[in-house]
Amino acid sequence: MNQTNAVAQEVPYIPSLFDRTRTQTTKLVAPLLPEDMMLQSMEDASPAKWHLAHTTWFFEEFILKPFLPGYASPDDRFAFLFNSYYVTAGPRHARDRRGLVSRPDNADVRAYREHVDGAMAELIALERDNTPEILDLIELGCHHEMQHQELLVTDLLHGLSFNPLLPVYREPEPMPVTTEVPLTWSRHDGGVIEIGHDGNGFAYDCEGPRHKVYVYPFAIADRPVTNRDWITFMDAGGYSDPRHWLMEGFAVATKEGWTHPLYWWQQDDEWWTFTLRGSQPVALDAPVVHVSYYEADAFARWAGARLPTEAEHEHAFAHHPIRGNFLNDGTMRPMPGSGVWGDVWEWTASPFTPYPGFKAPEGTLGEYNGKFMVNQMVMRGGSCATAQEQMRSSYRTFFYPHQRWQMMGLRLAKNT
Amino acid sequence: MNQTNAVAQEVPYIPSLFDRTRTQTTKLVAPLLPEDMMLQSMEDASPAKWHLAHTTWFFEEFILKPFLPGYASPDDRFAFLFNSYYVTAGPRHARDRRGLVSRPDNADVRAYREHVDGAMAELIALERDNTPEILDLIELGCHHEMQHQELLVTDLLHGLSFNPLLPVYREPEPMPVTTEVPLTWSRHDGGVIEIGHDGNGFAYDCEGPRHKVYVYPFAIADRPVTNRDWITFMDAGGYSDPRHWLMEGFAVATKEGWTHPLYWWQQDDEWWTFTLRGSQPVALDAPVVHVSYYEADAFARWAGARLPTEAEHEHAFAHHPIRGNFLNDGTMRPMPGSGVWGDVWEWTASPFTPYPGFKAPEGTLGEYNGKFMVNQMVMRGGSCATAQEQMRSSYRTFFYPHQRWQMMGLRLAKNT
Amino acid sequence: MNQTNAVAQEVPYIPSLFDRTRTQTTKLVAPLLPEDMMLQSMEDASPAKWHLAHTTWFFEEFILKPFLPGYASPDDRFAFLFNSYYVTAGPRHARDRRGLVSRPDNADVRAYREHVDGAMAELIALERDNTPEILDLIELGCHHEMQHQELLVTDLLHGLSFNPLLPVYREPEPMPVTTEVPLTWSRHDGGVIEIGHDGNGFAYDCEGPRHKVYVYPFAIADRPVTNRDWITFMDAGGYSDPRHWLMEGFAVATKEGWTHPLYWWQQDDEWWTFTLRGSQPVALDAPVVHVSYYEADAFARWAGARLPTEAEHEHAFAHHPIRGNFLNDGTMRPMPGSGVWGDVWEWTASPFTPYPGFKAPEGTLGEYNGKFMVNQMVMRGGSCATAQEQMRSSYRTFFYPHQRWQMMGLRLAKNT
Amino acid sequence: MNQTNAVAQEVPYIPSLFDRTRTQTTKLVAPLLPEDMMLQSMEDASPAKWHLAHTTWFFEEFILKPFLPGYASPDDRFAFLFNSYYVTAGPRHARDRRGLVSRPDNADVRAYREHVDGAMAELIALERDNTPEILDLIELGCHHEMQHQELLVTDLLHGLSFNPLLPVYREPEPMPVTTEVPLTWSRHDGGVIEIGHDGNGFAYDCEGPRHKVYVYPFAIADRPVTNRDWITFMDAGGYSDPRHWLMEGFAVATKEGWTHPLYWWQQDDEWWTFTLRGSQPVALDAPVVHVSYYEADAFARWAGARLPTEAEHEHAFAHHPIRGNFLNDGTMRPMPGSGVWGDVWEWTASPFTPYPGFKAPEGTLGEYNGKFMVNQMVMRGGSCATAQEQMRSSYRTFFYPHQRWQMMGLRLAKNT
Repeated sequence: MNQTNAVAQEVPYIPSLFDRTRTQTTKLVAPLLPEDMMLQSMEDASPAKWHLAHTTWFFEEFILKPFLPGYASPDDRFAFLFNSYYVTAGPRHARDRRGLVSRPDNADVRAYREHVDGAMAELIALERDNTPEILDLIELGCHHEMQHQELLVTDLLHGLSFNPLLPVYREPEPMPVTTEVPLTWSRHDGGVIEIGHDGNGFAYDCEGPRHKVYVYPFAIADRPVTNRDWITFMDAGGYSDPRHWLMEGFAVATKEGWTHPLYWWQQDDEWWTFTLRGSQPVALDAPVVHVSYYEADAFARWAGARLPTEAEHEHAFAHHPIRGNFLNDGTMRPMPGSGVWGDVWEWTASPFTPYPGFKAPEGTLGEYNGKFMVNQMVMRGGSCATAQEQMRSSYRTFFYPHQRWQMMGLRLAKNT
Repeated sequence: MNQTNAVAQEVPYIPSLFDRTRTQTTKLVAPLLPEDMMLQSMEDASPAKWHLAHTTWFFEEFILKPFLPGYASPDDRFAFLFNSYYVTAGPRHARDRRGLVSRPDNADVRAYREHVDGAMAELIALERDNTPEILDLIELGCHHEMQHQELLVTDLLHGLSFNPLLPVYREPEPMPVTTEVPLTWSRHDGGVIEIGHDGNGFAYDCEGPRHKVYVYPFAIADRPVTNRDWITFMDAGGYSDPRHWLMEGFAVATKEGWTHPLYWWQQDDEWWTFTLRGSQPVALDAPVVHVSYYEADAFARWAGARLPTEAEHEHAFAHHPIRGNFLNDGTMRPMPGSGVWGDVWEWTASPFTPYPGFKAPEGTLGEYNGKFMVNQMVMRGGSCATAQEQMRSSYRTFFYPHQRWQMMGLRLAKNT
Repeated sequence: MNQTNAVAQEVPYIPSLFDRTRTQTTKLVAPLLPEDMMLQSMEDASPAKWHLAHTTWFFEEFILKPFLPGYASPDDRFAFLFNSYYVTAGPRHARDRRGLVSRPDNADVRAYREHVDGAMAELIALERDNTPEILDLIELGCHHEMQHQELLVTDLLHGLSFNPLLPVYREPEPMPVTTEVPLTWSRHDGGVIEIGHDGNGFAYDCEGPRHKVYVYPFAIADRPVTNRDWITFMDAGGYSDPRHWLMEGFAVATKEGWTHPLYWWQQDDEWWTFTLRGSQPVALDAPVVHVSYYEADAFARWAGARLPTEAEHEHAFAHHPIRGNFLNDGTMRPMPGSGVWGDVWEWTASPFTPYPGFKAPEGTLGEYNGKFMVNQMVMRGGSCATAQEQMRSSYRTFFYPHQRWQMMGLRLAKNT
Repeated sequence: MNQTNAVAQEVPYIPSLFDRTRTQTTKLVAPLLPEDMMLQSMEDASPAKWHLAHTTWFFEEFILKPFLPGYASPDDRFAFLFNSYYVTAGPRHARDRRGLVSRPDNADVRAYREHVDGAMAELIALERDNTPEILDLIELGCHHEMQHQELLVTDLLHGLSFNPLLPVYREPEPMPVTTEVPLTWSRHDGGVIEIGHDGNGFAYDCEGPRHKVYVYPFAIADRPVTNRDWITFMDAGGYSDPRHWLMEGFAVATKEGWTHPLYWWQQDDEWWTFTLRGSQPVALDAPVVHVSYYEADAFARWAGARLPTEAEHEHAFAHHPIRGNFLNDGTMRPMPGSGVWGDVWEWTASPFTPYPGFKAPEGTLGEYNGKFMVNQMVMRGGSCATAQEQMRSSYRTFFYPHQRWQMMGLRLAKNT
């Protein structure tokens, strides 16, 4: 969460951020039926309705209850239903049963949002009382909600994928015809570098402190691995040759029967995939997506390269402006011609561990990131499901190495 | 399914049965939100929406497609989505993923019902072409739908029970104040008796052939075991003393942590239970419900009695008129003062096996009952979730000994 | 256990039975190494060493402790280690960890046997004090041990089968060359018959009371189903066609990948099997063995027949003398030319339920059979791993429908 | 494996190392019965017999087969049975079934060892032909065997712990009476440091290359956490307060019911533990052992400290001579008064990842470490089950964060 201060002159920024973020969430669920909003296809994923309610609860729990005098929740039981994992905020509903909560229904949850939005407007209007602490919390709540926007659409894709009718979330649109983009590399010198957030502007606790790291000279690819590259790997028997794989990865791949990325199937000798814009032929020059860390690592080894560390990734791209194909662009799937930011998250070789000097904040929000720092791998770069405003070059997202349902791809690196 | 013939004079009965059955299903889901209709809380249970669609598919698949010239389904893919387990009717959607089908949505499924109802009306109107075979199939379809009405409400209860808010399906209504009904017994002579359906009127295949069985003299209780009885068992340590239990039953009870019937909890020294009419104190003189065969068997042994066989049950009650608390009565839970029929299904000591001479019919409908004849136990008597019209003294329902979510109770028997 | 009385004139029989039984067990383990005696390949199976100790504990617990004044166990902790499932005899070691008890070692267990055998000799020598109760218990202990002899060799076969070297228990011996035996049938009239043990001589509690059953006319095959028959079923696609199968059976077969009986594999177009006499080509005219109830039932349906009920089986063969290929014959596998008794147990269509009037004896030995009376199926006929002396026409053994590791085969029946 | 060269003058060292190592293994199993050598209590652990055979196979496969002309294995099937995880060395027996291989028996495996030792002696005697490559492989084989010595004794402890009789491996010996050792800290400056093996002498591939790391100033405790410390944590409710725990760790601890280290129990208000020298009261001033990474991490957070990184650990102790309580000392359990090396492995905060510039060697031995580089945590320091000769300050061992059966403890660190 927010380690930095939303300084005085940012005041006008926060209300606008709040409005934009809340509106964007509402826009994302506009095409959904009440039935769609119930889908929970695995414990890792949550129903869209739950995302709507949980992001609302976040503002209620951490801002309205402590700071808006006289605030009353429309239903005190929502605190139990819509807390995700904050143990210090009290008990919570079992994660794998979120899909079994039919009531509050869709209308109730929208009313809950409106109630909280109204109270937030009231609080924000009390300008003179808005301490930096409150503004920081609002900013954090917005970034939190942007993270859930990403989960909302990727969880939805996963949920819809179990429907044999493969429903379409957003109207299909053909992919542009493209030609192969050759793989080129950028070299970087080594030495003591600095990574991590410097404290100016918003960042999550785990992005700091900014700190020194010793890196060795390396080269990093100028584009992510594409579907075309991936099909070459598949055709070369990449999925069935244990020499390329981490032992644990090969065991998972064998047990799960993986022979291609998630959501792919073969039809008349062509590879197809299920996307938020319906079923489509795999676009050869778009970045490969929905591959696990295990697959990404195997691909890199097969390709005679490796995954970059997060320090390398951050160092290489810290000065590239954050432009690319993000959630706001509405493509809802990675597009050909991808550069650095957006389109797909890129698995790094770095486990998610605390930076030197990291200390989780006191209190409930100290649970935000710190308690996940084991067995997960860092990804960098943002995706077509990420809100652009959410991205920074220091941004670290993290997932388990077997997970595939996020917009997960990769970029190669090598020693020089 | 139907082994018997719906003879000529029954013709007016069938259209009326069809209308009543279809209307009753619609009435049952009237209080439900689209979200409620998505709930699937375990593989054994199905969403209400699925029940609506599957019972409709049954008419389409077995009657309209073969017998109504020119009939077209609104969506050919429904045959895949809404087939339950008829392998000879083609492939089908995985049972444990029925809750992940958000589309067709509620409105689509209702339109599907209307489409099929219209076509059925058309077919029924062609009176002169309605062979006994067709009439038999319609009757079977109605009985099939009545079975699914029972599942619909019990699956719904199970689904709602995972919601910490414990939503109410039908407006609560206090239980009548009652006093204990003493347990009395009726004795029956032994000898060669006959059980099973005699072929007059509708029955499922597994209810026949009518056949001779040798039974020994026995006594059977005049009322089911009540909650008051059950609490005595609980207070006597019944759940924790392995001597009363089948070994497998005790292992399941231990693993699942059973110390009371499903949906019970203790609150301020009183037992409460979750019902389709909301949370209520346990009604002491109502039949106990939501107990597994393992628990029923342990109770009977603890009580110095045993469960009746299905032959004993049928023999004892064959001449009692089918009157009692059924689905049509709308209590939605077993009521005090229960006699023979309705309120709760009664576990018998009989595994579900074929009667002598049983032969599953040829074709797809031969899968209706025969392929379940292993590891399940027969229950008799009907319940408050059973359509009264569906009941006969020869009716056999069957469930696994660990299952509890149906309206399952018991009645004692003993040797004399 | 023993419901009957070992009458006075049987006194000399019991000591001899005791000696023969104990010696036979020792003979069975003679070819085994200490390492072999540790094998526990699944929870259902126990190490040979455990069988040696448990059968010894049975005499100690139920006879020596109550009836031999001054008897002391060599180690009081053995009661915990070697009790199988008698909850009223005290706590016991977890069944699935029997293979983790390296000490007491083989030598210790043999010393334990000798200690108990010595004490038993002492007790038996006190002739005048040996009440019928004691003699009955000794007889029961011997029959109990014979049951464990059968488990010992079948558990051993299972344990050895996980060793890729496929070790040989007893020296290989080629199967006789045979020709197909045509399938013939014997017809039986129906009516009220009697089955069950009549109380003369030893029998287990679950074999009685002798009672009347109404059976319909039937025919039963004169020989079990052979490997030749089974291969025809396999070649006809029997394992992959769900129409022949119970739904639950097909699910198990699919999940486990069953395409042939346990211990079979194909090698150069020939079927081979692993036996206690090493790997051998499948003998075409020997009874098929190591098939589950699910498979047996599917075979019977495919063959246009059914499995007999246990009443039919007992009625048909009650007057056939108990002669056949038993454990004593040492073939250690079913042999061609099998008639009624021995070679393979035959799955019946009857779940294991109590006979009318059955009441488990008071006390610990009441746990012997009664607490298993759910979800298991009865087999009749005895096998090549069964001690001949143990068999009676009323003998009921019972296993779960998915189990295959016993010497399990089948015989067909049909209505006439 | 060996990246370095065993240079010419080391020649006499290798034969001696080989003899010592092989003899030590034999000595370790001397107190074991054939039954003990069969124990496999979980997939992670292997039978002692398997360790004996696998370490022998290693010499056969990687040295004798390629380098000793005319060498023949006593049994070609051993390559299948005793390969552990080298996929490029061919198929192998399932890891979780090693305990089901009763034959080859103990005597066969000892004969196999003698056969290979004889052939190795022959090869070693051919001094002039022993290229550095061969000497390096022998050295690697010895270090490999030392690793398996550690597994052998810890696997044995685990296996024996499932025996309710809690057998004693080595004669019990009382722990010395001790008083609490206060916790003191050593401070270290930060900056660019170097860690990793420098290539002189033996090391595994994963210990290099030696490389620069930037570390911040830190302090590290002068002794490991003791049982006394741990009991304070337990008494303070450390196991039940989620605020101290990684979320995943708390979930595992809850599911497994952890409330104390592995092998502990409470008896008359005193903590006892099962060791290779039998059951003993927990020695308060000995290092705590058999705690998972999750527990170690929670303890550190509760204590207001953290675990050191592996760079910090190596940097802090690189110049401490490798002296301490090792396998050779025969205590078989951690002893009070522990300093830096030996007694217990110390969990670090570092996931096991490749060092910059790491490249797994070509060929089968490239599988030695590299394919495990995910989801495991590094431990440093060696234990009372580690051969002293095996240790270096650069030595990295690695285990999953939930594992407890190795001699796993911890040491605290903090920022300064």
